[in-house]
Amino acid sequence: MINIGIVGYGNLGKGVMKACRSHPDMRLKALFTRRNPADIILPDQGSGKPVPVVPIEQALDWHDRIDVMILCGGSAKDLPEQGPHFASAFNTVDSFDTHAKIPEYFRRVDEAARQGGNLSLVSSGWDPGLFSLARVLFGSVLPDGQDFTFWGRGVSQGHSDAIRRIPGVVDARQYTQPVERAVAAARSDNPPAMTTREKHLRECFVVAEEGADRETIRQAIVTMPHYFADYDTSVTFVSHAEMAEQHAALPHGGFVIRNGKTSDGTRQVAEFSLRLDSNPEFTSSVLTAYARAIYQMRLDGRTGAVTVLDVPPGLLSPKSAEELRATLL
Amino acid sequence: MINIGIVGYGNLGKGVMKACRSHPDMRLKALFTRRNPADIILPDQGSGKPVPVVPIEQALDWHDRIDVMILCGGSAKDLPEQGPHFASAFNTVDSFDTHAKIPEYFRRVDEAARQGGNLSLVSSGWDPGLFSLARVLFGSVLPDGQDFTFWGRGVSQGHSDAIRRIPGVVDARQYTQPVERAVAAARSDNPPAMTTREKHLRECFVVAEEGADRETIRQAIVTMPHYFADYDTSVTFVSHAEMAEQHAALPHGGFVIRNGKTSDGTRQVAEFSLRLDSNPEFTSSVLTAYARAIYQMRLDGRTGAVTVLDVPPGLLSPKSAEELRATLL
Repeated sequence: MINIGIVGYGNLGKGVMKACRSHPDMRLKALFTRRNPADIILPDQGSGKPVPVVPIEQALDWHDRIDVMILCGGSAKDLPEQGPHFASAFNTVDSFDTHAKIPEYFRRVDEAARQGGNLSLVSSGWDPGLFSLARVLFGSVLPDGQDFTFWGRGVSQGHSDAIRRIPGVVDARQYTQPVERAVAAARSDNPPAMTTREKHLRECFVVAEEGADRETIRQAIVTMPHYFADYDTSVTFVSHAEMAEQHAALPHGGFVIRNGKTSDGTRQVAEFSLRLDSNPEFTSSVLTAYARAIYQMRLDGRTGAVTVLDVPPGLLSPKSAEELRATLL
Repeated sequence: MINIGIVGYGNLGKGVMKACRSHPDMRLKALFTRRNPADIILPDQGSGKPVPVVPIEQALDWHDRIDVMILCGGSAKDLPEQGPHFASAFNTVDSFDTHAKIPEYFRRVDEAARQGGNLSLVSSGWDPGLFSLARVLFGSVLPDGQDFTFWGRGVSQGHSDAIRRIPGVVDARQYTQPVERAVAAARSDNPPAMTTREKHLRECFVVAEEGADRETIRQAIVTMPHYFADYDTSVTFVSHAEMAEQHAALPHGGFVIRNGKTSDGTRQVAEFSLRLDSNPEFTSSVLTAYARAIYQMRLDGRTGAVTVLDVPPGLLSPKSAEELRATLL
């Protein structure tokens, strides 16, 4: 059994709890939180015994009872501090996703993990994560070609937050959506270069304060630099009830397309796509599967920081290499 | 520079020659063949110097000049003998694809490679190969779910050959094609269990001898056990000229779909697909990219046999791990 610890009880942490239940070789050992443990009642994990909820500052006491700690905090504030901190005492898996800061974050976690004799997987999930794996795999197999990554249709948390900061806005949900003809062009015999904004639409659903001027809000959204100004952006005002009923879920997904040639006129198109009812639950499932691989790689002697690009895919499976060769190859 | 040798000058060998030209860190060092070398004139590889064509029985003399030998023979007759033979003297990559015999083949190559202190990748390509990787990755991330592999639309060499053996048939080409509503069902909220035959159609194009009875040929095809009897099979008679014009290429492709749930009602669908103008050229491109990984893993001390499931994806790329983290993660 692999003993799993979870740090943080937000959407990701809850997703890891669910994911652990579908892996027979994993046992959720404890949840570590900054909240008051007495306020958290965990759903039954099927073992009959409740999973301990532990104040985060006592986590280091558990270092010999946890095989892999899955860090479920956010990339902006939690992980830059928690990543190196926990890597010094535990094998860890995280989903650090601020692309521009990955190299620096990797170095800090790598140093802490090496000093502690642990192994840490950083920036897992689906992008960065599985999509990165697809980009590297496809680009290596088809060096003469073009890459296209499309996101959506799905909720962008950062863009939703930006709308909520506009005066007169009570709540907002922003969906990023691939432009259909851009997806078709990416798959075509003559794929054009396209920018992110040429490839995506932005759909906004907004609950306005009573009496607020909707046209002013609409203008504030569609002209907002970086976020919306350069995109085709639609704004739809909805009621509180509509928001709660129709926009509570966090779906997402996307495509990685590599359109290449292996000789003149010989076109080869590889594609990886996801259609997710729940972005956080899927991300959690990826983190949980990679926890198994990290456990195994540490047993094999590896320490420091790694990414999904360093992990042999067979280690994600509970099946032995021999069984995989016989059944799934 | 990684020095590549090719064994066999069929479609795959020719594809590896082309693929080597698009990898700046690879040099095609020699081609080994059972034919008379004087009969083979290789296209220029861009270096200005012709690539030596060497009788296959002299291959062992080259063991210190070749970093990775790419075995381009067939699975039925060539590889069972060549795989272990070359693994004893070279690092090798092959595309052994007789699924049922992979475990036995793996063991034989593993033993030869260990004795020779070499590293051998067996059963690479796209299925087995990249599709296997997708099956293992998706199944590990979404343990509660169903797998669907669809092949096509593409030419099946084995089925084409089976038709050619029918009296009165001069030439034949068989395309395997996914059933559209089966693909839609695999992606749906309620995916049914489906057999291979429920998922695929078989389209046959046949050149008949002059005077042959077409209805007899058609019956012989559609009732052929294992190959066609249980499938929806269409038979179209074409002229020699039509066959040469419209059916000379070897397109292929397919999908691996994993339709899973991470909690009740939360559906997550992952999909990997290929659309290939040339099946052999794409397979060759996969073998060539994996040759780079095998070269690196051998430098890192690994010996024996491995499959794509054992290869960290980052090693496929000519870019360093640091560069990949900064640009593709």
